[in-house]
Amino acid sequence: MYSKQIDLKYRRVHNFNAGPGTLPLSVLEQAQLELLDYRGSGMSVMEMSHRSAEFEAILAQAEADLRALIGLPASYKVLFLQGGASLQFAMLPMNLRPASASADYLVSGVWGQTAVREAKKLGPTRVPASTESTNFDRLPAFSAADLDPKAAYLHFTSNETIHGNEWFSEPEPLPGVPLVCDMSSDFLSRPFDSLKYGLIYAGAQKNAGPAGATIVIVREDLLERVPANLPALLDYRLLVEKGSMYNTPPTFSIYMVGLVFRWLAELGGLAEIERQNIAKADLVYTAIDQSGGFYRGHPRPECRSRMNVTFRMDSEELESLFAKEAKKNDLVGLKGHRSVGGLRASLYNALPLESAQVLATFMREFQRTHG
Amino acid sequence: MYSKQIDLKYRRVHNFNAGPGTLPLSVLEQAQLELLDYRGSGMSVMEMSHRSAEFEAILAQAEADLRALIGLPASYKVLFLQGGASLQFAMLPMNLRPASASADYLVSGVWGQTAVREAKKLGPTRVPASTESTNFDRLPAFSAADLDPKAAYLHFTSNETIHGNEWFSEPEPLPGVPLVCDMSSDFLSRPFDSLKYGLIYAGAQKNAGPAGATIVIVREDLLERVPANLPALLDYRLLVEKGSMYNTPPTFSIYMVGLVFRWLAELGGLAEIERQNIAKADLVYTAIDQSGGFYRGHPRPECRSRMNVTFRMDSEELESLFAKEAKKNDLVGLKGHRSVGGLRASLYNALPLESAQVLATFMREFQRTHG
Repeated sequence: MYSKQIDLKYRRVHNFNAGPGTLPLSVLEQAQLELLDYRGSGMSVMEMSHRSAEFEAILAQAEADLRALIGLPASYKVLFLQGGASLQFAMLPMNLRPASASADYLVSGVWGQTAVREAKKLGPTRVPASTESTNFDRLPAFSAADLDPKAAYLHFTSNETIHGNEWFSEPEPLPGVPLVCDMSSDFLSRPFDSLKYGLIYAGAQKNAGPAGATIVIVREDLLERVPANLPALLDYRLLVEKGSMYNTPPTFSIYMVGLVFRWLAELGGLAEIERQNIAKADLVYTAIDQSGGFYRGHPRPECRSRMNVTFRMDSEELESLFAKEAKKNDLVGLKGHRSVGGLRASLYNALPLESAQVLATFMREFQRTHG
Repeated sequence: MYSKQIDLKYRRVHNFNAGPGTLPLSVLEQAQLELLDYRGSGMSVMEMSHRSAEFEAILAQAEADLRALIGLPASYKVLFLQGGASLQFAMLPMNLRPASASADYLVSGVWGQTAVREAKKLGPTRVPASTESTNFDRLPAFSAADLDPKAAYLHFTSNETIHGNEWFSEPEPLPGVPLVCDMSSDFLSRPFDSLKYGLIYAGAQKNAGPAGATIVIVREDLLERVPANLPALLDYRLLVEKGSMYNTPPTFSIYMVGLVFRWLAELGGLAEIERQNIAKADLVYTAIDQSGGFYRGHPRPECRSRMNVTFRMDSEELESLFAKEAKKNDLVGLKGHRSVGGLRASLYNALPLESAQVLATFMREFQRTHG
């Protein structure tokens, strides 16, 4: 048994990064304590065999905690994979779109567009509705007649990080058409009814943990569609059969994701985190709405994202100055995505309420001095 | 600025896991110190945007250190990907085997067999030589006449973790046929001549870091073969163009891999680690060779792996007892792979010489009491 004392001096900023983004401090502290020796095992989680009893318990606990948080029935399978949503853009049609079928994608932002581009490489893909023409300032409206009744699935992106819009209720698919969602950036930010979905996928690096783990939740009956002879790492059915352990999974990332699930459960679950997320978003949107046009939110109020608050100011110079001054005050990650510019404050689960308060106060102060 | 004291009590075992496996203690200690606040940035590496200057520097430094360790010329590109060697089994033929061509695979163990199985799903695949009939106790012998002069590439597995054999010099491909290697389990364990290779891939979780990062080194001219319209995450050319940042990479795993590269450089590089690896392997093989048949190494002496020492005893009961007693003495991870049984001691780069000494001593003592 070794013993040592660490004198730790550290600072923590208000972290508005869009993902990878802020993690709960208590989760990082626990990971730090366990980094050289996971609970007396004599090794770091990073050094464990993925076939060891210790790691199998970590994986099983992560899945159990996720199921409890969502209230996920046994008819759904959970996968912990790699490659992010970007790999799911390809795996989804490879696995669930039969050669004879097309798939429908509702597009409300860049991630939806990217999903369409990848799906088109692999087969027939339709876009029944998109709000590209208004620069994704709203969610696409559509009627049942716009949808393909034989579609392999209906896909949407529940939260678009770049344009900052969010679906607060699911689009309604036609009967028999499974609903599929890229939930990467609002996953676990509020309760949702899993029974409405055929498949959900989410990169972990927004609300669920560090980059490097991807969560897929799939209704078991859909696995019958998986064609034979897919590459093993791209085959949902095989990966489900092997319990995410066909090959070595990203063990440490899964451990971190598990710690985040536990933190969320102890906090009070999805209803409580939704309450906190609403409070944080309200603080920032109120600062925008009360600015008399000094700050201008990008999307229409009814679909403003609670996760990514996107706004513009009168000039790029002023936006740059805002981001620079903010950084001096330890408010980081506020520049908008390079593809659209402007400003963006991401308010993921782990962002403390205090950080949103500090940002709202800074916004008022910046307006006072530069308005 | 926060300040706190951590009183850390921890134990460290002798970790012979086959991968994920032991990491350098100094690397883990550094990661521990930086876990809440990476060098004054106010956040963990896990919480940083992958587009931030801090992370871009981490990625660039990791690549530079890797290039320096290997002596890699600029005509080779380096990728940090996800999915392990198992995903490369599919990406390799997808990218580098034109529709009209076949590829040759030399098979010396289970990983080579798996690579063949995946390659066959996607197109013509030949096995010019395999040692399956002798349970992979040797490397496959072949002559130039066995090889396909038009093969897209010649593939081999430089170290087979399950059977414990290793190629200490490269197989000779026919002129114009690129040599491709799954180097997952002996990557960076000794110097090698990168110019002999067209492509090298390696899951990080043996010698290069934690699970969740995969390194691919590819000769730039081969990228011309990459067909159009591959899924983005499976497209070597696109991933090279984007500098491993087409999407969010596994940031923390890459940071850890970078720390391991740095550790290796400071230790003296590949020549020095080879010296240490030879010394460790000699200790354990000597214990086997001097046991008078009590321990029986699986592969022939000329191809015995320095990374994975595989051996059997007279009965499974005795092998079980060995593993159990070893564990009581803090020697862990010695059970053979579930597919072949027996015992296996993995002696990766980060395993201290002392651990190999302790194992050799334990082996002699176990023989004395149970022989």
